[in-house]
Amino acid sequence: MTNTHRFLTTTFACLILTQTSLLHADEGMWLINHPPKETLKKRYGFEPTAAWLEHIQKSAVRFNSGGSGSFVSPDGLVMTNHHVGLETLQKLSTKDKDYVKEGFLARSRDQEGKSVDLELNVLMDIVDVTEQVRAAIKPGMTSEQAFKARRAVVSQIEKESQTKTGLRSNVVTLYQGGQYHLYRYHRYTDVRLVYAPEQQIAFFGGDPDNFEYPRYDLDVCLFRVYENGVPVKSQHYLKWSKAGPSENELVFVAGHPGRTDRLNTVADLTYLRDTELPMVLARIYRKEVQLTAFSSRSIENARLAKDELFSYQNNRKRREWALQSLLDPHVWARKMEAEKALRHAVAQDKKLSSLAGAWDRIEQVQKIRAQSFKEYVLLEAGWAFDSLLFGIARTLVRAAEELPKPNEQRLEEYADSDKASLELKLFSKRPIHPALEEVKLVYSLTWLAEHMGANHPLVLKVLAGQSPKARAAELVRGTGLTEVELRRRLYAGGSKAIAASADPMILLAKLVDPDARAVRKLVDTQVKEVQRQCYDQIAQAKFAVEGTSSSPDATFTLRLAFGVAKGYEEDGRQIPFTVPYAGLYERAAAQKYVPPFNLPPRWVESKDRIDLTTPINFVSTCDTIGGNSGSPVINKDGELVGLIFDSNLHALVRNFLYTEERGRSVAVHSSAIIEAIRKVYDAPDLAAELTGAK
Amino acid sequence: MTNTHRFLTTTFACLILTQTSLLHADEGMWLINHPPKETLKKRYGFEPTAAWLEHIQKSAVRFNSGGSGSFVSPDGLVMTNHHVGLETLQKLSTKDKDYVKEGFLARSRDQEGKSVDLELNVLMDIVDVTEQVRAAIKPGMTSEQAFKARRAVVSQIEKESQTKTGLRSNVVTLYQGGQYHLYRYHRYTDVRLVYAPEQQIAFFGGDPDNFEYPRYDLDVCLFRVYENGVPVKSQHYLKWSKAGPSENELVFVAGHPGRTDRLNTVADLTYLRDTELPMVLARIYRKEVQLTAFSSRSIENARLAKDELFSYQNNRKRREWALQSLLDPHVWARKMEAEKALRHAVAQDKKLSSLAGAWDRIEQVQKIRAQSFKEYVLLEAGWAFDSLLFGIARTLVRAAEELPKPNEQRLEEYADSDKASLELKLFSKRPIHPALEEVKLVYSLTWLAEHMGANHPLVLKVLAGQSPKARAAELVRGTGLTEVELRRRLYAGGSKAIAASADPMILLAKLVDPDARAVRKLVDTQVKEVQRQCYDQIAQAKFAVEGTSSSPDATFTLRLAFGVAKGYEEDGRQIPFTVPYAGLYERAAAQKYVPPFNLPPRWVESKDRIDLTTPINFVSTCDTIGGNSGSPVINKDGELVGLIFDSNLHALVRNFLYTEERGRSVAVHSSAIIEAIRKVYDAPDLAAELTGAK
Repeated sequence: MTNTHRFLTTTFACLILTQTSLLHADEGMWLINHPPKETLKKRYGFEPTAAWLEHIQKSAVRFNSGGSGSFVSPDGLVMTNHHVGLETLQKLSTKDKDYVKEGFLARSRDQEGKSVDLELNVLMDIVDVTEQVRAAIKPGMTSEQAFKARRAVVSQIEKESQTKTGLRSNVVTLYQGGQYHLYRYHRYTDVRLVYAPEQQIAFFGGDPDNFEYPRYDLDVCLFRVYENGVPVKSQHYLKWSKAGPSENELVFVAGHPGRTDRLNTVADLTYLRDTELPMVLARIYRKEVQLTAFSSRSIENARLAKDELFSYQNNRKRREWALQSLLDPHVWARKMEAEKALRHAVAQDKKLSSLAGAWDRIEQVQKIRAQSFKEYVLLEAGWAFDSLLFGIARTLVRAAEELPKPNEQRLEEYADSDKASLELKLFSKRPIHPALEEVKLVYSLTWLAEHMGANHPLVLKVLAGQSPKARAAELVRGTGLTEVELRRRLYAGGSKAIAASADPMILLAKLVDPDARAVRKLVDTQVKEVQRQCYDQIAQAKFAVEGTSSSPDATFTLRLAFGVAKGYEEDGRQIPFTVPYAGLYERAAAQKYVPPFNLPPRWVESKDRIDLTTPINFVSTCDTIGGNSGSPVINKDGELVGLIFDSNLHALVRNFLYTEERGRSVAVHSSAIIEAIRKVYDAPDLAAELTGAK
Repeated sequence: MTNTHRFLTTTFACLILTQTSLLHADEGMWLINHPPKETLKKRYGFEPTAAWLEHIQKSAVRFNSGGSGSFVSPDGLVMTNHHVGLETLQKLSTKDKDYVKEGFLARSRDQEGKSVDLELNVLMDIVDVTEQVRAAIKPGMTSEQAFKARRAVVSQIEKESQTKTGLRSNVVTLYQGGQYHLYRYHRYTDVRLVYAPEQQIAFFGGDPDNFEYPRYDLDVCLFRVYENGVPVKSQHYLKWSKAGPSENELVFVAGHPGRTDRLNTVADLTYLRDTELPMVLARIYRKEVQLTAFSSRSIENARLAKDELFSYQNNRKRREWALQSLLDPHVWARKMEAEKALRHAVAQDKKLSSLAGAWDRIEQVQKIRAQSFKEYVLLEAGWAFDSLLFGIARTLVRAAEELPKPNEQRLEEYADSDKASLELKLFSKRPIHPALEEVKLVYSLTWLAEHMGANHPLVLKVLAGQSPKARAAELVRGTGLTEVELRRRLYAGGSKAIAASADPMILLAKLVDPDARAVRKLVDTQVKEVQRQCYDQIAQAKFAVEGTSSSPDATFTLRLAFGVAKGYEEDGRQIPFTVPYAGLYERAAAQKYVPPFNLPPRWVESKDRIDLTTPINFVSTCDTIGGNSGSPVINKDGELVGLIFDSNLHALVRNFLYTEERGRSVAVHSSAIIEAIRKVYDAPDLAAELTGAK
C-alpha cells in the first residue's frame, strides 16, 4: 500500500466509532495507589500485589522536561525516548559536535555527558489531602477568596511535607477538582547522558510517519543518575525481558500522561473546540513555518532549531486530531449522551440536588474564559514574547517580587516547594542562540500587534516606536541575560537590583507584568477556581452514580495503564502487532532514501550484521497519551518488554475518549534495543548492564 | 558573511528609511500611454518616441496565470520566468516525466509541448473611457444603484469593443477609481513549451534565498505562440543585447505589476494592517504546513504539491513584509503626513470643497469591510472550499444562472468579454489529484468550522453530519467533475442540467451559493462601490493639487518602469550590481550542497565548460512588484538586457511606497541565458534564434 493511499484511508476511516470501540475495556490511566484491581482480575486473571505496585512506582521516573522513563539497571541507568532526551542532547551539542545528528555513546563512566538542567523525579509516596483542601473552602466565599484559601492550604501542605521529608512535594488536582493528592518525589539533578542513537534512526520517517503504524523507530535514549558524584544504586529497577511481549499478552505502562480532557463538560469542550484549539493551531502553523524557514537558511540554523521544530510538528498533529475529534458528530454525540445521562441521574436523586447546578456554572464561565484567552496567552503564557531571554527576565522580575512574600501568598511557581527546580532552570548554562531568539521575537511581537491591535497602548509601549523587527533586534542585542552570572546577581539582588537594572529585556518584563498578572488573576479566580469547585461537584455526582470505576484525567503524574499487545484491522487488512527490522530497510528503499526516510551511515553498514527478523516496534491497547513518551512497557513479572514512544492516529481521539478498536500505543521492542546496542553500536558492556548479564 | 548574519542585519536595517530614500526618483509603474517623459528627459536625457513605446507595448506579453513575458524572436518565441511557467510545467508533467525537476528542451518544433490552458494577452490599444463611466453614475444614486450602473456601462463598453474589434476588451480601473481605460488584447491560447531548465537552477537557494541578493538563479522559461497550427510571426519582438546592462545604465521594465496600495488612505491601510493581512497570513501559514506535510509523505506527493507550495511560500514573504511595513512607525508617519498635506490643501481650496469628505467616507466603510471580510473570503473567495473540483462546480452552477441573463447584469467574470477565457479554464485537461484535493478540502472545511462556528447553520449543512475529514473524502471520492466531458455536458445543459445533477460537489456549490452571493453583493455595493467613488474624488484632488505626476497603483496591466542598473550599500559593504556564475558554485559549496542549495547534475558536469565570469543576476532601481515576474529589462535601444524575476527584501515595502536607497529589482542577465543554453543545454539553434544569429 502506498503512503498516499494509507493516509487517505486513515483519514477517512479514523473517526468512525463502531460498536466494538464502545466497549473500551482497557481504558484508564490509573492512579498507582488505586489500580483497577477488579478489571484486571476479571479480564486477565491477574492480581497485582502491593510489592509489585511499589516496585513499578519506584522504578518509574518522571522527566520534568515533559516525559517519562524508568530505572533499568542497579547502577542508576534510566531509559527514556530519544525525543524526550532530545532537549538535553541539543543543549550538549555544539556547532562542531552535533549529538542529535551523530548520536552519543559513553564507553566509560567518565565519558558520560552531564546535562545542564535536567531534573528527574521518582514518586516516593502519595497522601490523600482532599478533605484538608476542601475544608479550606468555606461556604459563602467569593471565588477570589476561595482561590486564595485553596492556594494557601495547598502551599502549606506542600511546605510542611517538604520540611518534614526533604522530598519535593506537590499537591495534584485530580478529577479536575474532585480529589487532591500530595505527591512526594525524590529529585535527581545530576543526570548524565550515556547513549543516544542518531536522530535519523530514532525518528526514522520524521513528521510524515509520526503517529503512524507500522513504524520503524529506535526511539531510545539512556541516562545515568548520579548523587554525590557517583551513580545511584537504584533499589528499584526493571529487569529486562528476554523475549519481549507475545501477541495478546497482558502488558502495563507506567508513565506520566500529560493531559486529557475526558471528564470535561460539553460546555468546556465547546470552548476548547471554538476558542482554544483554533488559536493554538494558528500559532503552531506560524511557529512551524518560522522555524522551518529559519532552518532552511543553513545547516547550523537547522541544528539550532531542531528540537523546537520537532516539538511544534508533533503538537500540530496532536492538536489537529483533537480539533477533528471535536468536529466529529459521533464523538460529540457520545459526550452529549454521557452528560445527559449523568445529569438526569443527578436530577432524579434528591441527595445529589446540591450538585445539579455545576454544569450550568461551568457553561457560564466559558464566556469569561473565551474573552480572556487571547490576552492570557499573549501576556501571561508569553506568546507575545517567544524568547528564552524574555522568560529569564520575567522569572527574575517576578522572583524579586514574589520571594519576599509569605510562601502561601506567592504565585505557585515561586513557592518554596518548587524553588529548587526554578533555580535549576534559571541558572542553566544551556546555550542561547541570538539569531534564533531574534527571529522568534520578531514573529511573536508581530503576533502581539496583530492580536491586541497595533494601536493598543501596551503594544505601543512594547514596540517603543519601532517595527517588531527593529524592536526584536534591539532587545536581543541589548540584553546581557545570556550571561548566567548576571542572572545570579539580579536574583540575589532582589527588587533593588531589578529596579536598578537598565537591561532592555528586564525593562520589557517589568513593563508587561501588571497586565500579565491582571489577566492571570482574572483567569485564576473567575475561571479556574469556579471550574475546580464545579468539577468537584461533578466528580461527587459521578462517584455517587457510577462508582469510582473511572480514572482521573491525566495530570503529568504517575499512572498505570494496562492492555494487550495486539494488532488491528484497517481497510480489511490485518496490521500485525509487531514489525521487524527488515521493514525498516524496506520502507527506506521504497522512499528512495529521501529524507526523512534516509538511514544513518552506521545503519547502512550494519545491515548484514543485524538479525532482520528482530522485532523493532509493537503496538498495544494500553491507554496512553503525550507525556507517556519514554514509559516502560512491563509484563506481569515486572520485566521491561518495551518502551512507549507514540500512538497511532486512531488513538489521537484519546484526549477526549478511549477507543480500543484501532487506537494503539506504539512502543520500541525490548529486543530491538539490545540488538542495536550490540550489533550497530558495538557496546556489549551497555547491553550486558541492561540485560543483567554483567 | 554567513547567511544567518546576513538575515539578521537585513531584518534589522531594512525599514529604516533615510533621507536619501525620500527622493524616490525612479518611482513609478507608468501607463504605457502616459510615460514619465519629463523625468526621463531631465534625469536621463532620454526621449522615447511613439514608435519606441509601441514596440515595447506590443512586444510585452501578459501571462493570464499571473505573470509577464515578452516576444523575443520573429517566430513567436516568448520568454518569461521559470516560476511563471511552473504551473504549465506542472500540468504537463506526470509521475514518470517530471519536467519541473528535470527541465525541458524541444529540439524541434514537433517536440514543443502544448499547454493545456495557458492564455497570453498582448495589449493592442488603450481608450480612455473615464467620462463615459463617470457619466453613468448619477447624483443621488444609492451605492447599490451606482454599482449596477457602473457594472452595466463597463460591460457595455467591453462588449461593444469586443464585437467591433474581435479583441479581448477589459475596462481597467485606475487610481482606485479615478480613471477608467479600456484595454484591448490579442489573445493567444495555443502556447507551447520550448525550454525550461531544472527548477533547482531556476530557483537555486529556494525559499531561504527568495527575495535575497546576491542571487544565483536562472529563472527563465521559453514558450512559442502558435495560431492556426503555425508559429505566429511576431511583428514586434525584443532584440537580444550582446552585452547586457552596464553599471548605472538606464533600463526599462515593461510588465504587468499585480497590485500595489500606495494611494490607499490611512484608514484603508489600517484595515489592511489590522484585518486583512493577519488573516491572509494565518491562512498562508496553514497552507504552507499542510502542503509541506503532504509533500513529505512521498516523492510523488512532493511533485504534486510543488507549484502550489512555491506560491504560498513566495506570498508568505511578501505578506510578512507588507505587514512589517505597516507596523513600521516610519512608514506609517510618511503615509499620515502625505494624507494630512493633501487634505489640508483640499481644505484650503474652495474649488475642491466637494472632495473633502472622501477620506471620512472611506474610513466609514472599513467597518463593514472588516466585519464582512471573514465571510467573504470563506464563502466567496472560496477559502472554505479549497479544491479545484469545487471551483469547477461553482463555475458550472453560476454559469447556469448567469449566462441566460443580459450581459450587463451578470457577475463580471461571466460577461461575454471574459467568456472565452472562462471556458478555456473550465474545460482544461489539467491533471487533478484526488489525494491532494482531499487534504486541501479537509483543511479548508476545518477552517470554515473554526471561523464561522461549528454550530453555524450553514456549516452544519456543509458538513452534513460528518467531520471535515469524512466529508472531504465523501465529496472528492463522490464527484465526477474530474471528467472534462461531464463538465461540458453540465455547461451545455444549463440550469436544467444543474438542477438535475446529484454530483456532491455540484450540490455543495449550490448549497453555499446564496450566502456567497449575498456577501459578495454586500462588499461590492457597500464597500467597493463607495471606495471607487471616494478614490475618484481623491484622485481629482491629487491631480488638482499635485498634478498628474504620479502613476496609478498596479492593476495587472501593462506598465513601464525605469531605473538604473546599480548596486547598493548594506552594513558598510557595497553589494555589486551584478554577480557572476562563479558565485553560484561558491554558494552551493558553502552550503555543502544541502537542498535547496544543491546543483542539478547537468550543472555539476558543465562547470568546466561555463565561462564563470559571465554575469548571472543583476539589480536595478526599477519600480516593480509581484506580477512583474518575467518582465523584460530593456535598454534605450529597445534591446533585451535582462529578465525580472524577483526583488530584494528592501523592495518589499514597495507595496506601500517606493524607496530607492536599497530596494532593488532582481533580474537574470541576458548573457547568463545564452551561456546556459549554449554550454549547459547544448541548444545552439535556440541560442541563435534568441540572438538573431539564425
